[in-house]
Amino acid sequence: MFDNLDFMLNHRSIRAWKKDPIEEDLMAKFFEIANRTSTSNGMQNASIIRVKDPEKRRELAEVAGQKYLQDCPELLIFVADCYRNVSIMKEKKSQEILANDADRFFQGWTDASLMAQSIAIAAESCGIGIVYFGSILNDAKKTIEILKLPENTFPVVGLGMGYPDQEPQLKPRMDVAEKVFVDEYKKSKSYLEDLKDYDQEMKTYYDLRNAKKALDAFTDQVVDKNDKHVAKRSEIFEVIKEQGFKF
Amino acid sequence: MFDNLDFMLNHRSIRAWKKDPIEEDLMAKFFEIANRTSTSNGMQNASIIRVKDPEKRRELAEVAGQKYLQDCPELLIFVADCYRNVSIMKEKKSQEILANDADRFFQGWTDASLMAQSIAIAAESCGIGIVYFGSILNDAKKTIEILKLPENTFPVVGLGMGYPDQEPQLKPRMDVAEKVFVDEYKKSKSYLEDLKDYDQEMKTYYDLRNAKKALDAFTDQVVDKNDKHVAKRSEIFEVIKEQGFKF
Repeated sequence: MFDNLDFMLNHRSIRAWKKDPIEEDLMAKFFEIANRTSTSNGMQNASIIRVKDPEKRRELAEVAGQKYLQDCPELLIFVADCYRNVSIMKEKKSQEILANDADRFFQGWTDASLMAQSIAIAAESCGIGIVYFGSILNDAKKTIEILKLPENTFPVVGLGMGYPDQEPQLKPRMDVAEKVFVDEYKKSKSYLEDLKDYDQEMKTYYDLRNAKKALDAFTDQVVDKNDKHVAKRSEIFEVIKEQGFKF
Repeated sequence: MFDNLDFMLNHRSIRAWKKDPIEEDLMAKFFEIANRTSTSNGMQNASIIRVKDPEKRRELAEVAGQKYLQDCPELLIFVADCYRNVSIMKEKKSQEILANDADRFFQGWTDASLMAQSIAIAAESCGIGIVYFGSILNDAKKTIEILKLPENTFPVVGLGMGYPDQEPQLKPRMDVAEKVFVDEYKKSKSYLEDLKDYDQEMKTYYDLRNAKKALDAFTDQVVDKNDKHVAKRSEIFEVIKEQGFKF
């Protein structure tokens, strides 16, 4: 039963694509699906930028530090967008504009994320490979510039799409029991203990970006990502405020 | 793979459910699917609380101001979770803990949202109805208390699920052209002008929560939601900081 869900259990990021474009009518369907996705309070505080221009692609790849961002047949940037509704309120000469406060900002962030995942799943269900680009936030200010995002908008995440030209290994995940709790959050006495097997399993995973060496244990990755943190990412909150959101 | 994507084009929120529970093996599959969902930097900064306890349900329904939150066969709360990785870093005696800065917080928010939408779509593909509860943030602090969420975690969104016992009308959405742009953001000269037809269309929509009266025009709703803003929602950022995130 429900074999049709198996593709969702087999999600892996794709970073090499065939040259074939995604059919335009399929892209149109994906956008309709995004538009139909649940949205906080019905306010539809999200938008999508479909990036085609090679120069913008190059600039974004530079921000992301990921060359393959340039090459993917489709690149979508999902945007938390309170600009539209703030504009509506201004046109309507509404007095007190709360439409760009922290609450609305987070609603927009959620709206944008849900839209992204709707398209990601719809695409994967059609045999298209996807990869998220959180790395567009390595320099949020620059990404905003490139896409000419106005005040009260903010880039949330990028999505690369295309027909896969690689077959990566399934990346190990920690056990569901570490993440799903009943009725209340359950702290662990020792995560290093809990994740021992998972740490071992991770060492059997070969990332195609560096196929010569297996990944480190997960708990080592956590420390490592911290040490190798991209400096500008820590400025994200400053940039959000510069965009005019009222926190 | 899905036989076709039409069910995604027909998404509507369900707020009345049959008594039948969702099969436990199906729930297990949904959790595996959530676990397999893309996650920022592979850091898996999200968790799920499955709320069964009737008393907690009652309290959450009170926060949400939505009685039907109590009745849905399944209620999941998605949580941005940096507690796990901060704990790992502490256990490893890692010096500089960035694992709960604004950047990681947003990664967690995205991770939680993507997980939620994975489950929502998987469920809908099986004929299960879903509704999001953004309203758990009407009093974020209280929600945190009810679910005993530790420091460095934050509730993002709730998801109610069950076999539908109603067939709501498809709620109108603004045109895709208002939300999807090529290469850069396109501001409108007048949203009131752009959305004229959409405003009219919205007036033909009857929400089953108040089936006697059609909804207002979208642009009026924008003003109205602003006026009727729940006061405590504006405190969201204070609560985020109280949870220990370093902004």
